[in-house]
Amino acid sequence: MGLNKPFLDQISQTKPGKNNLITDVPGVTVGHQTLVTDRLKTGVTAIIPAKNNVFEHKLAAAGHVINGFGKSTGLVQVEELGTLETPIVLTNTLSVGVAYNYLVKKGLAENPEIGLKTGTINPMVMECNDGAVNNIRDLGVTEDDVAQAFSNAGKTFAEGCVGGGTGMCCYDLKGGIGSASRQIEIDGQTFTLGALVMSNYGYVSDLDIYDHQLGNKISQLPEYNKRDEDGSIITVIATDIPFDPRQLKRIAKRSSVGITRTGSFIGNDSGEITLAFSTANQIEHSPKQQLMTRQAISDDQMDRYFRMTVSAVEEAILSSLVHAKTTIDRKGQERLSLTDALTKVQKQASGRDEDVATLQEKLGLL
Amino acid sequence: MGLNKPFLDQISQTKPGKNNLITDVPGVTVGHQTLVTDRLKTGVTAIIPAKNNVFEHKLAAAGHVINGFGKSTGLVQVEELGTLETPIVLTNTLSVGVAYNYLVKKGLAENPEIGLKTGTINPMVMECNDGAVNNIRDLGVTEDDVAQAFSNAGKTFAEGCVGGGTGMCCYDLKGGIGSASRQIEIDGQTFTLGALVMSNYGYVSDLDIYDHQLGNKISQLPEYNKRDEDGSIITVIATDIPFDPRQLKRIAKRSSVGITRTGSFIGNDSGEITLAFSTANQIEHSPKQQLMTRQAISDDQMDRYFRMTVSAVEEAILSSLVHAKTTIDRKGQERLSLTDALTKVQKQASGRDEDVATLQEKLGLL
Amino acid sequence: MGLNKPFLDQISQTKPGKNNLITDVPGVTVGHQTLVTDRLKTGVTAIIPAKNNVFEHKLAAAGHVINGFGKSTGLVQVEELGTLETPIVLTNTLSVGVAYNYLVKKGLAENPEIGLKTGTINPMVMECNDGAVNNIRDLGVTEDDVAQAFSNAGKTFAEGCVGGGTGMCCYDLKGGIGSASRQIEIDGQTFTLGALVMSNYGYVSDLDIYDHQLGNKISQLPEYNKRDEDGSIITVIATDIPFDPRQLKRIAKRSSVGITRTGSFIGNDSGEITLAFSTANQIEHSPKQQLMTRQAISDDQMDRYFRMTVSAVEEAILSSLVHAKTTIDRKGQERLSLTDALTKVQKQASGRDEDVATLQEKLGLL
Amino acid sequence: MGLNKPFLDQISQTKPGKNNLITDVPGVTVGHQTLVTDRLKTGVTAIIPAKNNVFEHKLAAAGHVINGFGKSTGLVQVEELGTLETPIVLTNTLSVGVAYNYLVKKGLAENPEIGLKTGTINPMVMECNDGAVNNIRDLGVTEDDVAQAFSNAGKTFAEGCVGGGTGMCCYDLKGGIGSASRQIEIDGQTFTLGALVMSNYGYVSDLDIYDHQLGNKISQLPEYNKRDEDGSIITVIATDIPFDPRQLKRIAKRSSVGITRTGSFIGNDSGEITLAFSTANQIEHSPKQQLMTRQAISDDQMDRYFRMTVSAVEEAILSSLVHAKTTIDRKGQERLSLTDALTKVQKQASGRDEDVATLQEKLGLL
Repeated sequence: MGLNKPFLDQISQTKPGKNNLITDVPGVTVGHQTLVTDRLKTGVTAIIPAKNNVFEHKLAAAGHVINGFGKSTGLVQVEELGTLETPIVLTNTLSVGVAYNYLVKKGLAENPEIGLKTGTINPMVMECNDGAVNNIRDLGVTEDDVAQAFSNAGKTFAEGCVGGGTGMCCYDLKGGIGSASRQIEIDGQTFTLGALVMSNYGYVSDLDIYDHQLGNKISQLPEYNKRDEDGSIITVIATDIPFDPRQLKRIAKRSSVGITRTGSFIGNDSGEITLAFSTANQIEHSPKQQLMTRQAISDDQMDRYFRMTVSAVEEAILSSLVHAKTTIDRKGQERLSLTDALTKVQKQASGRDEDVATLQEKLGLL
Repeated sequence: MGLNKPFLDQISQTKPGKNNLITDVPGVTVGHQTLVTDRLKTGVTAIIPAKNNVFEHKLAAAGHVINGFGKSTGLVQVEELGTLETPIVLTNTLSVGVAYNYLVKKGLAENPEIGLKTGTINPMVMECNDGAVNNIRDLGVTEDDVAQAFSNAGKTFAEGCVGGGTGMCCYDLKGGIGSASRQIEIDGQTFTLGALVMSNYGYVSDLDIYDHQLGNKISQLPEYNKRDEDGSIITVIATDIPFDPRQLKRIAKRSSVGITRTGSFIGNDSGEITLAFSTANQIEHSPKQQLMTRQAISDDQMDRYFRMTVSAVEEAILSSLVHAKTTIDRKGQERLSLTDALTKVQKQASGRDEDVATLQEKLGLL
Repeated sequence: MGLNKPFLDQISQTKPGKNNLITDVPGVTVGHQTLVTDRLKTGVTAIIPAKNNVFEHKLAAAGHVINGFGKSTGLVQVEELGTLETPIVLTNTLSVGVAYNYLVKKGLAENPEIGLKTGTINPMVMECNDGAVNNIRDLGVTEDDVAQAFSNAGKTFAEGCVGGGTGMCCYDLKGGIGSASRQIEIDGQTFTLGALVMSNYGYVSDLDIYDHQLGNKISQLPEYNKRDEDGSIITVIATDIPFDPRQLKRIAKRSSVGITRTGSFIGNDSGEITLAFSTANQIEHSPKQQLMTRQAISDDQMDRYFRMTVSAVEEAILSSLVHAKTTIDRKGQERLSLTDALTKVQKQASGRDEDVATLQEKLGLL
Repeated sequence: MGLNKPFLDQISQTKPGKNNLITDVPGVTVGHQTLVTDRLKTGVTAIIPAKNNVFEHKLAAAGHVINGFGKSTGLVQVEELGTLETPIVLTNTLSVGVAYNYLVKKGLAENPEIGLKTGTINPMVMECNDGAVNNIRDLGVTEDDVAQAFSNAGKTFAEGCVGGGTGMCCYDLKGGIGSASRQIEIDGQTFTLGALVMSNYGYVSDLDIYDHQLGNKISQLPEYNKRDEDGSIITVIATDIPFDPRQLKRIAKRSSVGITRTGSFIGNDSGEITLAFSTANQIEHSPKQQLMTRQAISDDQMDRYFRMTVSAVEEAILSSLVHAKTTIDRKGQERLSLTDALTKVQKQASGRDEDVATLQEKLGLL
């Protein structure tokens, strides 16, 4: 449900939608499959962009690569055609092939003409490496797991250590799935833009939440353990504002601002990749006519939409941190949650640490 | 062995290497697994770029997307880091996930530190849709098939309806795998550049070989059947010239010239994607020193290298056509080989068709 | 008036518009200023995309860089915003600043709010190096010359050694300005796409016109002189088909096919840059509403539009060659026109050279 | 001389070079020409990248467009060839043509073979719109002014309202030129990376310096005036680390982190463009040999170089703010300097404003 606290929206001055989740965008649903065993802490998150068959009724989309140390599939075709034609699956890096296979089979089942009367399908799979927590070499995700994530999809969904985010770490703390949404009035109509992140990047020393830099205090906790593996962040942005692919790319680019506002410098090893789509226009796989009119929006007030994007992405990251739970990692060490880390810093302080208390207050943790 | 005829190299005035194959580049090997059953005509081609463990000793690489209606994986990271770190697998579109899975497992087996002490691996998989000939919905390629392609790898390899090219069509004729190489003297040293294509694009009416346009005659043959599915072409370029990633991207872009020289206008549905790599410098996964010297080459004479690239790619396409065999497609119709098509056109001619005869002569078909 | 001969349109099977010029697109006009003195053979071509003030009512646009050895201005903003907001000026490389200055002053004069109540303006200037023929170091083009090109603009215009093309060379022959147009029916309506090129690239040995390679014969003429300077080609594409910027970029990319069909391999030194714009939608500088509908077109039949683009660009290049006149270059040597070169080859032939005659016939030169 | 206070380098933990200026990179010099009259507050800044003739001995370079609402010239060729071949000129938007003309003439004067025995030259000009302060419609910059900036170049240079930065505004305050440098040890050798910005972007409500958000207090000052024109930021990064163009592009991308750390969300109207070059390898215009070795550096520790880049760019922006002086803008209103704004906020506070005092202390303003 996003952050359970009125957010501090200096940047956009917009308010969240009903649930402060990406699913506040009409038609969008999200489901998780979470795998936690002795050796596995991983999973799958499915983002279903529309109620319709998205292969038949494609959506305008654009990707943006902030730093390309990543293995997402589907981006080449999105760049060329400006359309999304499958749901989006988020999982761990080594399970991309499994998710690809599932999306192929699902696409074939739903579209009997694929491979017979029409071409193929472009599976959209995005990933981060959860190897710090998960025994990623076990290749624990199956196609059934991906199917289960789809079965679990709905308008509300858990955040934190769930689905694709189960084993992810962020700023050396426990990360995972986070989401947020923003609403805006345009020409008298209300529109929604939502973000969902799978957060797995950053060093605690860089962490900066609402201008509070508590990383040095956290890193001095006895329970703190530095991560030595590399990270990434996947961002998905959904909206019903009628952006075209060029505008969606501009929107996707602003995810980098949301990310850097939490302290990141965009590391070398980080696969920071963003996909943005709009549900406003349906782009027919088999159009009856070539010419048409489409809903469109001017670039004139893009600043407003950029600001709400930055705000939603920043808060989605914070929500992933706030909802995550302290987890034992692959080496048997604690991977602290932000919540626990702040509590511990406060406990160890000689007297009340006002900086920590203020941040806890801002994040709704008190 | 490439075209079995002295080629007509007006564009580059360079000669092929020993076998006129991409494997003329030292260290490069290629293997196929060909699947032909009642329903399947598909397969896998593996291009192994070096004898060394390419994850530990990466190679400079660059991709280029001519038209992005394609599902290749690995290009995002190649663009960012400029390195190739797995072999390259070519297969049908819906088997990309299978090939990805195989490359992950192979990478894990050969690199025990992946997922434990170091990050993950970037599988390089490229594809075309062989659905005109192959029952692609059967998902007939298995990970074992990919493994078998690797087992079969060597310095010589078959062309035409083999490996990933088994079910591919080109200019409405039977296409598949083709290869060629060119050698050049630079500062007194001999270097090699080789191309391998998986050809699956184009309409016969556009076909133009060495300035002979015989498509209209071919399309009037009773045995001719137009393809209604979409196509693509994958091109892999290997060289021992010490290009850096920027230069390799420039080389990769010239593949489009080789392709259009055979008549293509680069169709909407065509996934035309090229990967180029150089074996000249090894880029260590775990370098002992940060500073180093690397072998490099000036852009001053790029025209010479562009010309040999165009020539190798054009001839690789022609070689795929010349080596392909007439095949019964998924609908039970003939998919003519170029060789058979020219023979049939000649047979049907009233008197000798000099145009056909000249082309047959040029292609070494007489 | 384009080629004065029914064109050989195997690739698109579309017909030219009224004048076979880019100005067949409603609203588009073109004007030249040609400078020929003892030392100067250079000039300016202005392409005015619409009757309206294009700063107030911008047009959808996209650029594509085939090979970036070029100094065009304006492309960065076109890429970001997808709009053209000034006319397009073509001139020699060292006069880009002069043309930029003119477009700034023209923009200021027509838009009193620039720099006061609104931002600045993005001048679109494109160039080739005419240094083989023109004493380009003399910096002979003035702002008045640019103004004169605008004054001369109309629906008909000369081709060959005029305007920005005055001193350009193509395939070692005399090049310059060429244009062509194509018309197409879409959903029962007729649309036009036009191309204008400033041709200044290539080597005669590569020249291939309608599958006739006569470069070797031309290069043996006593009057033939090889050019040792580098070349380029600028292509401008106009259409009233309601493409959005993403689609216009796809259209612009196909200019490379038109270019390579005449024999080019896209040389290292060649600045090959294309700008495409659509007149279908006006994008208001100061929109009254943010939300709107826009005319749009499906990608479903892009192949038809790609083919007409290839055809128009190829023919525009040929038209630039056919309309050019033999010119004395900067070194005092002849820079043969294609027409003269073919005549001379025919004259020198022992007996009638059927290949030359056929090409002359095809080009309407007999 | 950069910030006159020990910087707060949490992000990179590196120290400035001798002068904390881009000119700490050996060979780099910078000069200004500042134009202040009744109507003009504008100018020119020249960045000379090397002592050598940079056309003959080019430098590795890369550009990055953060948001492309800008009119810089030269980026297309830098992208293709990876080289810088002229000095860099920063000025106002409408003077790009004038600066282009100057760089052409300077190039012709220094390189008599241009246009005769070799090709042309690629002038590198970057710009922001200083129309809030300067009567930009007056086109006040002349080629002589550009020449004067070059004449004034040296190892030390002023910051703030000087040169190209004379009329620029940043976060609604007075902006301009700022610079900073960082040094690092790599394999036992010391290297320098320097940044220079021309800052002209942002809204005061977003301003965030070292996690102090004082914009709301500043905007309540009676002397505060909101800017309604659009802004931009140009960043130039110089280094003697032997990065190749691909790596320089990665470095250039991190300038966006430095910018967003000061509060920006990268606005729609902002031309945010970065050029990075390395002085380590000379790339000869006329190489004697094609093959060579070049100094190179692994990507393995890019995080260290990214951090110093972020740090230098962030501090260069702050330095531009700290060195700027309160200026009367085009409308006769005050454009407050950061220094004056903080002083005024402190004065108006009831009691000492600790937040302001802390920031003043951090910035060395007390």
